Order: sequence, then structure tokens, then C-alpha cells
Amino acid sequence: MGGRALVQWEQNRDNAPRSLHVDLYTGGPAPEGGLEDVTFYQVPYAPSTQGVDERLDMIARMPELRVVQLVSAGYEQVLDLLPDHVTLCNGRGLHDASTAEHTLALILASQRDLPRWAIDQREHRWGSVPQRSLADSRVVIVGYGSIGQAIERRLLPFETEVVRVASRARPEEGVHGVDELPGLLPEADVVVLVTPLTERTRGLFGAEEFALLRDDALVVNVGRGAVMDTEALLAQNGRVRAALDVTDPEPLPVAHPLWDAPGVYLTPHVAGGSAAFYPRARAFMDGQLARWSAGEPLENVVRPGR
Amino acid sequence: MGGRALVQWEQNRDNAPRSLHVDLYTGGPAPEGGLEDVTFYQVPYAPSTQGVDERLDMIARMPELRVVQLVSAGYEQVLDLLPDHVTLCNGRGLHDASTAEHTLALILASQRDLPRWAIDQREHRWGSVPQRSLADSRVVIVGYGSIGQAIERRLLPFETEVVRVASRARPEEGVHGVDELPGLLPEADVVVLVTPLTERTRGLFGAEEFALLRDDALVVNVGRGAVMDTEALLAQNGRVRAALDVTDPEPLPVAHPLWDAPGVYLTPHVAGGSAAFYPRARAFMDGQLARWSAGEPLENVVRPGR
Ligand SMILES: NC(=O)c1ccc[n+]([C@@H]2O[C@H](COP(=O)([O-])OP(=O)(O)OC[C@H]3O[C@@H](n4cnc5c(N)ncnc54)[C@H](OP(=O)(O)O)[C@@H]3O)[C@@H](O)[C@H]2O)c1
Ligand SMILES: NC(=O)c1ccc[n+]([C@@H]2O[C@H](COP(=O)([O-])OP(=O)(O)OC[C@H]3O[C@@H](n4cnc5c(N)ncnc54)[C@H](OP(=O)(O)O)[C@@H]3O)[C@@H](O)[C@H]2O)c1
Repeated sequence: MGGRALVQWEQNRDNAPRSLHVDLYTGGPAPEGGLEDVTFYQVPYAPSTQGVDERLDMIARMPELRVVQLVSAGYEQVLDLLPDHVTLCNGRGLHDASTAEHTLALILASQRDLPRWAIDQREHRWGSVPQRSLADSRVVIVGYGSIGQAIERRLLPFETEVVRVASRARPEEGVHGVDELPGLLPEADVVVLVTPLTERTRGLFGAEEFALLRDDALVVNVGRGAVMDTEALLAQNGRVRAALDVTDPEPLPVAHPLWDAPGVYLTPHVAGGSAAFYPRARAFMDGQLARWSAGEPLENVVRPGR
Repeated sequence: MGGRALVQWEQNRDNAPRSLHVDLYTGGPAPEGGLEDVTFYQVPYAPSTQGVDERLDMIARMPELRVVQLVSAGYEQVLDLLPDHVTLCNGRGLHDASTAEHTLALILASQRDLPRWAIDQREHRWGSVPQRSLADSRVVIVGYGSIGQAIERRLLPFETEVVRVASRARPEEGVHGVDELPGLLPEADVVVLVTPLTERTRGLFGAEEFALLRDDALVVNVGRGAVMDTEALLAQNGRVRAALDVTDPEPLPVAHPLWDAPGVYLTPHVAGGSAAFYPRARAFMDGQLARWSAGEPLENVVRPGR
């Protein structure tokens, strides 16, 4: 393919086919060489960036643009910025190991009281209380996609039962449709939310869903903050626990009541961007640039250009 | 078998064969009915009890005693209290799910900075730093026994490599002998210590072993505190990290330097005794009492009576 590609990592520039013109752009002001002939733009990775920024503003100044490549899994933030003819690819799969691992960390931390021990250590206090387990729990995964499946693989050896939920039932794979959720929640010990943010998933987990949960059940959100209704969680007042890597709003304002809500454990949107992400992303980008330069179909197309 | 059995849980008394005389003893002063005819004594479970206590003192006042049954995996604390003719059984297997789960919690907490987020939450601080992963790590398990194997099963789906170490090499199972440890440590990202405390394991992990580790490697101890040399860890001063569920001494005195040592994360000996332990222990005790009353060989004999 003609024109110029912008990528973030030197490895990808160095491994790209000679026929492809590739420049580095790691964020900040527009790269040397301008934007006029950019046809393939890998938006530099910035974990949990809020709203529109320079990296995305630039898209409007690329008249030859054909492909926008994100390395994040979520892409709701760019859909409105793309002309119809531009193809959008995302980072599906690149965050699976990192996000699934952090999800298990949040579940285990909540079941085994790790936040308490961290604070006890700071205060030099040695003393235990009865501990929950993850073993013998039933875990409902809402969003049985790439990350949801990676979470399941990690959960099963912990002697748990996993219940799979996606947008529509796929009975041959044992996947429930999201319309069946009300029947599944009363039997759940842990619910993991790991869907994209869409019209349909906004507020998916609200007052009605919380009300169906057992006392002391745990809701983990590693998808997007707005998939869970924050007010509905606060109204639980500790009856149900939560571990959230994503919040609504984000970042959480310093005076927000979630910080001190009983039974709520927070991490600052760090699930997807750990060390495991980078080698996987660079390897994927090598392949994607090779496909682009050979005119082969791209992977991870989430919205084809028209 | 004749005589009387003392057990801790009502389920076991209620499920025991009618032919067996079973009383409850849950700790504290000696049970009604005295100790004279006790032949089978299940020592009541007390997580992380230090030194000799009432429950163990009683052993000397049981002239007919044939079997002491612990439900803990560790048994070093009772060996010196038993007459030669008494058989000792332990709780091997009953803590596997609970301890392995807590081990993964400690590893993930350390790799994903959970103690930091717990303290940031308390201070209403939202902000991230580059995160390590567990994925792509090499984990050396020192003590490839019942719990070590349960840890391995849970680690593998995290895209890790596991290296097995036991007291002696078993090449057909891919198990290294502990004498090979010096060659294995320089390549390790994480080392898990999960051996019993014996003459040979006391101080097993000391200054020489720490010196062989990479910068930023993680040592996790869920075996016994004295298996690791505390002074040697302190001397690392953050070069190597540690996550310890067991310490030496235990409980940790309020002024001990471990509390604030850089890169050290502590939990107060809570790995084995979580909710998962109890149903497994009660089910095992039902079986053990049935075997005892039928004169069948007992399970989990760690020192046969002579
Ligand atoms: N916290 C972090 O750092 C972080 C990191 C990476 C990703 N994420 C978030 O995680 C999301 C999922 O990523 P992924 O790669 O696993 O995406 P994916 O492979 O596209 O899977 C998404 C899953 O969500 C399901 N889903 C969509 N709408 C739904 C609804 N209304 N009700 C129930 N399920 C619904 C889909 O159902 P179908 O199977 O029926 O299509 C699919 O199973 C991303 O969109 C992103 O927002 C967060
Ligand atoms: N933190 C807690 O709450 C908690 C809970 C439960 C147990 N524990 C501790 O965990 C220990 C292990 O329990 P387990 O049920 O897994 O015991 P296990 O099945 O008897 O296994 C012990 C393992 O340690 C190995 N080992 C013994 N001496 C060694 C040495 N010098 N060097 C290297 N490896 C050595 C054994 O090697 P071989 O295979 O060659 O015999 C075996 O693989 C218990 O003894 C207890 O102290 C702690």
C-alpha cells in the first residue's frame, strides 16, 4: 500500500517491509514529515486517556488516511472522529493476558482481604479474621469475548464454576444471552463485567441487578466504568462488594464517595497496560504492517471503511 | 477400634459409625468425660498457633492414645510431644486449595502493585505507574508437594513457566533436586517457598540464594517463616521483593524492621485457613473416622506409631 505509516515502536519500523514508508510517532505534536500522506495511523498507546486529545485530533488532518489502528481493546472514543471511508482496527487480544491477570488479582484480593493486610502492614498490626475463598465459588462472566475467555481459563483451576454470558445466547458453546442475567445473578458469588461500552451496555448493571445478588457477593468491573451504575453500587452500602479497575467518572474526583464506600476496592484503570501488553502489541503490529504492505486483509477490523 | 475419639466438628460426630464413641472437643479445658479412654484425638484447628498450648498439653494425659490427627499440613510442633507408639496423621491436601489460592493472590498482588492501590484508595489518589505482569514469568516452586502442585495448576494458565524443585530430583517428573537451586535462581522471576520446616529446610533461603536472584525478582514464602533467613532478606533493602504469609518470628513484633522493609508485602499467616479449608477438612475427617472404626489403614500418616 502506498503513502506513509505512523507507528509507535521502533521494532515495528525496523521490521516493516522495505517497500513501506514508516515513521515513528509516539505522541505530542505532529511528527516531522507532516500528516498529508499518512495512510495508516497507529494511534500511540496511552493507558486510560480521557476524552479527545492531540493523538486523536490529528486524524482530521490526514486527508489520505485509510486505516486507524488502535492498540487498545476499547474503541468507543474514536468512532465519531472517523470519516466513513476509514477502516478502524483495534487491539483485541493484546490486553487479554494483562487484563485477565489483573481481574484475577482483583477477585483474589477481594476474597482474601489483601487491601486490609496492606493497611495492617502499614500500621504494624498482625491479626487475622476469617477469610473467604475463591474456591467453590460460582463466577458469572458478563462479556464472554476475548478477555472474558482469558479470565475463564485462569479461573477454572481455582476449583470454581464459570457461567458464560454474552450479548446473545450461543447454546452450543454454553453461553447465555444477557437477557438471562436476572435468572443467573441470585446464584452468583462473583460477577465479572468485561464488555465494551455501547448503547446497550451503558448502565447494564444497575439497581435491579444489584438487588438480585446475594449478600456479600462480589462485582468486578474491568470493562468500562459506565457499564455499572455507580449510584446503584453506593446504595448497596456494603451489602454487596465491588472491585473496580474502571469507574464512572474517570479519573475519580478526590471527593467522590466511591473512594470510601464500604466493601469497594479500586485500582486506577491499570488492568490492560501492564508489561505483558507490550511484547504482544509489538508482535501484532509487525504482522499487521506486513499484511498492510502486502495488500492482505487486516486483522482486528472493528469497522470496515466504506 | 475401641476407646473414644475426640473430634472438632459436629458433622464428624454425627456421621461417625454408631460403633464408635465420639465426643466433641473444640479447644479450651479438657472435655467432659475426661481423657483416660481417648484413643483417637483430632487436635482442634487453630490457624497459626504459636508454640505449645492446652490442646497439645492434653496429649500427655491420654494414656490410651493411639492416633493424633492434625488438620494442619505442618506438624513440626507436635513431634516432640508424642510417645513412640502413637501414630501421627496430618492435614495434607486439606489446605491445598486455600494455600495455593493465597499464593497466587500474593504473587499477583506483588506484580500488580495491589498494596499501593489499597493505600492510594485510602488517600483518594488516582494515578498509575508502569505495571509488572505475571505473564511471561518463570516461577520456581521450592517444595513440589501437595500444595506446590496445586500452585502449579493455578499458575500455568497465566502464561508462565514453572520450574519444580523438591528435596531430591525426580527426572521422570521434571522435578529438580534442591541441590540444583543455585543453577536455577539466576533465571527466576518468582520463587515460591512451600516446604515443611525441618532440619534441612531451616534457613534454606539465605544470603547466598538472595545474591543469585535478579534485581526485582520476587520471593514468596507460604511454607514456614524460618525457611527463609529474615536478616538476609532485610539486607537486600528492596533489590529483591518478597511476599510473606509466614514470618520468623511469628507473630511479627510491632517494632520489627520487616513491617517497613522496601518491597516486602506481608499477610498474617492466613493462607491455609480460609473458607475452602473447612468443607474439605470435614469430608476428610468423615472418611478418616470410618477407616479408624473399620480398622482400615489411615490416610495421611506422617509418623507411624511403633
Ligand atoms: N480495564 C482495562 O484496562 C481494559 C483493558 C482492555 C479492555 N477493556 C475493556 O474490555 C472490553 C472487552 O474487551 P474484549 O477484547 O474481550 O472484547 P470482545 O472480544 O469484543 O468481547 C466483548 C464481549 O462482550 C459481549 N457483549 C457485548 N455487548 C454485550 C451486552 N449488551 N451484554 C452482554 N455482553 C455483551 C460480547 O458478546 P458477543 O460475544 O455476543 O459479541 C463479547 O462476548 C473492551 O471493549 C474494553 O472496554 C478494559
Ligand atoms: N501458610 C499457611 O497457612 C500454610 C498452610 C498449609 C501448609 N503450610 C506449609 O506448607 C508445607 C508444605 O505442605 P504440603 O502439604 O505441600 O507438604 P508435602 O505434600 O509434604 O510437600 C512438601 C514438599 O516439600 C519438599 N521438601 C522437603 N524438604 C525439602 C528440602 N530440603 N528442599 C526442597 N524441598 C523440600 C518435599 O520434597 P519431596 O517431594 O522430595 O519429598 C515436598 O515436595 C507444610 O509443611 C506447612 O509448613 C503453610
